Amino acid sequence: MAGTRKVIELFYDVVSPYTWLGFEVLCRYRNVWNIDLKLRPAFLGGIMQGSGNKPPGLVPNKFAYMGKDLTRLAEYFGVPLGFPANPFEAMFEKGSLPAMRFVTAVAESGEGREADVEKVSRELWMRIWGRDEDITLPASISEAGLKAGLPANEIEELLKLAGSPKIKEKLKSSTQEALGYGAFGFPLIICHVNGKKEMFFGSDRFELMAHCIGEQWLGPQPATMSAKM
Amino acid sequence: MAGTRKVIELFYDVVSPYTWLGFEVLCRYRNVWNIDLKLRPAFLGGIMQGSGNKPPGLVPNKFAYMGKDLTRLAEYFGVPLGFPANPFEAMFEKGSLPAMRFVTAVAESGEGREADVEKVSRELWMRIWGRDEDITLPASISEAGLKAGLPANEIEELLKLAGSPKIKEKLKSSTQEALGYGAFGFPLIICHVNGKKEMFFGSDRFELMAHCIGEQWLGPQPATMSAKM
Repeated sequence: MAGTRKVIELFYDVVSPYTWLGFEVLCRYRNVWNIDLKLRPAFLGGIMQGSGNKPPGLVPNKFAYMGKDLTRLAEYFGVPLGFPANPFEAMFEKGSLPAMRFVTAVAESGEGREADVEKVSRELWMRIWGRDEDITLPASISEAGLKAGLPANEIEELLKLAGSPKIKEKLKSSTQEALGYGAFGFPLIICHVNGKKEMFFGSDRFELMAHCIGEQWLGPQPATMSAKM
Repeated sequence: MAGTRKVIELFYDVVSPYTWLGFEVLCRYRNVWNIDLKLRPAFLGGIMQGSGNKPPGLVPNKFAYMGKDLTRLAEYFGVPLGFPANPFEAMFEKGSLPAMRFVTAVAESGEGREADVEKVSRELWMRIWGRDEDITLPASISEAGLKAGLPANEIEELLKLAGSPKIKEKLKSSTQEALGYGAFGFPLIICHVNGKKEMFFGSDRFELMAHCIGEQWLGPQPATMSAKM
């Protein structure tokens, strides 16, 4: 069925605000481009450590610009992104390890969980980057799961699964796979085109990506834009 | 004459390959958008030092990606960019101080030198980022000036002027002005819209910039694209 469709893999972590923009764009383009989107939950902390990269926010001018840039992009992309009161604490002290283990557990809990992985990821982003809420405690993750439409008893099971060696290993190996592709941050996007793998970093290469995969870029809100035409 | 046109200032240094892409795009859009483009030669070395930023190329995965990204972008933007055999030596050991002092001298040598500033800058980019040629020696800079159409005797004068305290100070103050706008790299683009200054960093925010200034983004090669339509 998906044989003639181009496969696009998105390696991501809900701790990254820029990645949220790219995640929403790719979810929207699933219905616009002839693509099969594979969501690949991974761990940004492992990418930064493995690549030796440093958070851009450590340079004051860069941090100030990122705030402005993200605010403008969020409005233009139509993503309800807002800054946590303490972004450093949220991103680097609290981090996303339990959250991404939970997302991995959802993905690994059976076949055809793509829609749930998408919804749970979005609800986690809504918490940390939309409403400045915790994503580290089991109660926080449960709430995201409930909002994503998962039954309470399944969430219980998934939380247990998230702490298992199997899921910890899976998250590690996905992160390693991203590092193997040359990751130094997220989003990392792998386009499988004509037997080749084209790697893109960031949420600002979609126009170029469209050009590379032979599709058309219609802006970050393609439905709205085509409705306007 | 330029009263109703939006002023866009481009702070740049020919040592930066990404900046070359943005420079060419803005030069092209001068005839597409209702803008008055002000070219502002400045010194990237001073920006990095003043902002505490580090070159992205120090992270191996990031450096490898930048090569791929620049190659793809250059093709898509239609800019004849090629990598120097030793980019670190070209960018950080040799650098661009004499070149940017020369460009500043051209800009400061009289009224209405915008076209010459553009041509000389492009010829310097063609040397360092097109043909892997030196841009530090007077003979190299002269050659760029000749290719830009400047008379040999004027180039002689401009080289002298480039070493004067006045020009050194001007390059310093332009660099300081960019730092004051929050620069941490180039290109730094300031859009003057409705009495406000909107700052953009990089050569990958033109679609967003168009949205902010009420213009339309037609891709990096607007003439080609409109010809296709």
